[in-house]
Amino acid sequence: MENKEEPLRLHRQWRGKLETVPKMRIATREDLALAYTPGVAEPCRAIADDPDAAYAYTMKANTVAVVSDGSAVLGLGNIGPLAALPVMEGKCALFKAFGGVNAVPVCLDTQDVDEIVETVIRIAPAFGGINLEDISAPRCFEVERRLVEALDIPVFHDDQHGTAIVVLSGVINALRLVGKRKEECRVVVNGAGSAGIAIAKLLLSYGFRHLTLVDRCGIVSSRSEGINEAQRAMLAVTNLDDVEGGLADALVGADVLVGVSAPGIVSADMVRSMNDDAVIFAMANPEPEIYPDEAKAAGARVVGTGRSDFPNQINNVVAFPGIFKGALEGRARRITEEMKLAAAQALADLVSDEELSEDFIMPEPFDPRTVERVAKAVRDCAAREREGRPC
Amino acid sequence: MENKEEPLRLHRQWRGKLETVPKMRIATREDLALAYTPGVAEPCRAIADDPDAAYAYTMKANTVAVVSDGSAVLGLGNIGPLAALPVMEGKCALFKAFGGVNAVPVCLDTQDVDEIVETVIRIAPAFGGINLEDISAPRCFEVERRLVEALDIPVFHDDQHGTAIVVLSGVINALRLVGKRKEECRVVVNGAGSAGIAIAKLLLSYGFRHLTLVDRCGIVSSRSEGINEAQRAMLAVTNLDDVEGGLADALVGADVLVGVSAPGIVSADMVRSMNDDAVIFAMANPEPEIYPDEAKAAGARVVGTGRSDFPNQINNVVAFPGIFKGALEGRARRITEEMKLAAAQALADLVSDEELSEDFIMPEPFDPRTVERVAKAVRDCAAREREGRPC
Repeated sequence: MENKEEPLRLHRQWRGKLETVPKMRIATREDLALAYTPGVAEPCRAIADDPDAAYAYTMKANTVAVVSDGSAVLGLGNIGPLAALPVMEGKCALFKAFGGVNAVPVCLDTQDVDEIVETVIRIAPAFGGINLEDISAPRCFEVERRLVEALDIPVFHDDQHGTAIVVLSGVINALRLVGKRKEECRVVVNGAGSAGIAIAKLLLSYGFRHLTLVDRCGIVSSRSEGINEAQRAMLAVTNLDDVEGGLADALVGADVLVGVSAPGIVSADMVRSMNDDAVIFAMANPEPEIYPDEAKAAGARVVGTGRSDFPNQINNVVAFPGIFKGALEGRARRITEEMKLAAAQALADLVSDEELSEDFIMPEPFDPRTVERVAKAVRDCAAREREGRPC
Repeated sequence: MENKEEPLRLHRQWRGKLETVPKMRIATREDLALAYTPGVAEPCRAIADDPDAAYAYTMKANTVAVVSDGSAVLGLGNIGPLAALPVMEGKCALFKAFGGVNAVPVCLDTQDVDEIVETVIRIAPAFGGINLEDISAPRCFEVERRLVEALDIPVFHDDQHGTAIVVLSGVINALRLVGKRKEECRVVVNGAGSAGIAIAKLLLSYGFRHLTLVDRCGIVSSRSEGINEAQRAMLAVTNLDDVEGGLADALVGADVLVGVSAPGIVSADMVRSMNDDAVIFAMANPEPEIYPDEAKAAGARVVGTGRSDFPNQINNVVAFPGIFKGALEGRARRITEEMKLAAAQALADLVSDEELSEDFIMPEPFDPRTVERVAKAVRDCAAREREGRPC
C-alpha cells in the first residue's frame, strides 16, 4: 500500500468493519414478544430437548468464529490480539461478502496452547465452525489438532489449509498449461512453516511424488539441525533421497517452486537451473521471492505471487468463504483431506481451456461461481462421507 | 405466548436472529486492498503502537459480548449454553435495534466460576463491554466481581443491575404519583436471588431506609438458616430491626412490594395489610405474584408486572441498550453505582407530570428518547467521574 493514510482514514471512518444486525424488525411489543420473551422460550425448549435443533433455530448453522492469538499476523509478526483485530474483522467481512457466512472476530488474550484450546472449546456452542487465523507455528499445529479432536464442528487453520488449497489449484492449472504430469514433476516448497508444510502435505495427497521442503537452513533432511517435530514428520514423505544442500541445490532440475518464505531470495540463476516450463509461485509478502518479470526472463513459464498487481494472484479469498459455506451447508463435522482436494480441483476447473494462459491460471474471487463451486465441492464431499462413500 | 408454533416458525425462518454485516463494499481488488491486505496492516501497526487506537480503528468501540453459561435462562432454569443461544441472540438483536450497539452471543460450555472468569478475560480484547446474562446466583456475584476487577471495560450483569435500574425508575415515579417520600417508605423485596439483592442495593443507594428482603424461607434475618453469603451481607443494611416471619408479616404496613419470586404467592389479604396507596411490582414470569386487577381490588394504587399485556411493564429493554451505549460512548471503565442511579432517574424523568398516572409510570421502550436519555445520563456520569467530580 503506497498511501498509508488512506487505509487509516477509512478504518477511522468505519470504526469497525463489521456490525451485528437483527434479521427481523423490532418495532412493536408483538415483535419483542416473538424475537425475545416470552416467545423465545419455545426454541430454547426445543434445543434443550434436541441439541441438533440449534441448527434450525439459531445462527449456529451459519456462523464461524475467526480465532487468533495475534502471534503471526500478516507480515507484522507477533503484535498481539488487540492489534490483530483489524485483520480478524477484515476476514469476517470477507466471509460474509464472499460466502454469505456470518463471522465473529475472537481475539484471544493468551498465546498458551492449552489456554487457547480450552478457551475455544468453551466458546464453541454458538458457532458452527472455527477458523483459526494468524497463529504462529509450530503452536498452530497442536492447537488445530486438539480442537479437531475435541469439537464436533469444523476447525480449519486457513493460513495452512486455505493457502494449500489455493496453491494446489494453481499448480494443477499451471501443469495443465505446460502439459506435465504430476507424477513426474519435481516440486520444491521453500519455507517450512505452517503454510509450507500444509502445502507440501496437500500436494502429496493430490499425487505429487517428488517433493523437497527447504527451510532457512536449507533442504530439510535427516541431518538437518534445529527442525521442529512437524518438519521432522515430513521427512517420511519428502526428500526421499535424503539429499542435503541449499535452495539453489534443491532447484536444479525442479519443475515447480512454491515459495512461502522471504523477499528476494530466489535468483535468476536458480530459475535458470530449473527444468523447462518451470512454474514459480513466489508468495512472500509484500515483496515476492523473485519478481515475475525477472523469473520469466530467466525462463520460468508461469509465475504467480501473493499480490494483486501481478497476474496469477494466489489469494486465500477464493477458498475459505466457499470451504466454510460448503462445510456448514453440508453439516460436515470436519474439513477432511478429501474436501480440500475437491475444493482445489473445483477452483482449477473454473478456468476453462479457452481462458487458461500463462497469465490466467486462477479463478477470480469476484466471480460468483467461485464460492458456489468450492462450496458445492465441499458439501458434496460431506454428503458422500456421511454415506461412507469416497469423495 | 399462547401460540407456541408462531415463535418456532419464525425462528426456523430466521435461522439465527443476527447476522454480521460488513460496513463497506467489497467488490473490487482495490476494496480488498483497503479493508484487508495490505491496507489493514496500517491500523494494526497503529494499535500495536498504542492500544487505545483500537477504539478509533475497530469495532471494539461499539461492541459488547452477551455472555451466558445457560444456568438460569428466563423461567426455563439451567438449560445449558446451546439452548440459551436463542435468548442471547435476541438480546444481541435488542442491543442493536434499540441502542445501535453491536452485540455478539457468547455461550459458554462451562458453569465453573473460575473457568467462566478466565474465559471472558481471554476473549475480552475484541469487545468494548461485557453483558453477563442468565447466570445463576450466587455464582453470578463472584463472576461479575472478579471480571470487574480484572478488565478495563464495563462488565454488567443485566439480570441484576438492569432490573434494579428499571425497578428504581418505576418506584421513583410511583412514589411521585402517590406523594410519598423515600425516606419514610417501607419497602419489601420478595425474592433474594440476583435480581432481588441488586434491587435492594440500588434502592438503598437511592436513599430508601426501611427495606426488608424476603426469601422462600421468610424474612432474611440474622437467624435465617441456609442463606448464602450475598444474602447475609445484606443484613447490614436491611431488616434493621432484625425481625423474623414470613412474607405476610413483612407486608403489614409496607408501602412498596417488589416481587421477583414466584407466581401467585401474594394474596389479596397481604395487599390489604399494606399501607394506603401501596405500590406493587409483581414481576414473576410468566405469572405474576398477584394479578393487577386482584391487587387493585385489594387496595393497591400502582401495580406493575413483567408482562406486556398489562400497564406498567417493568422491562429491562428500556435500560440496557442505553446503559451500554452511554458507557461505550463515554469510554467508562466501569458501570458505577452513580451511573445506575442517574440512568434510573433519567428513565423516571421521561414520564412528564401530565403523562404520569397509575397506569403510566414507565417510559416506552420504543420512544427514541428512552435510549438517548439513559445513554446521556451514563455518558455524562462517566465524564464527571473521569474529572473526579461527583455524578
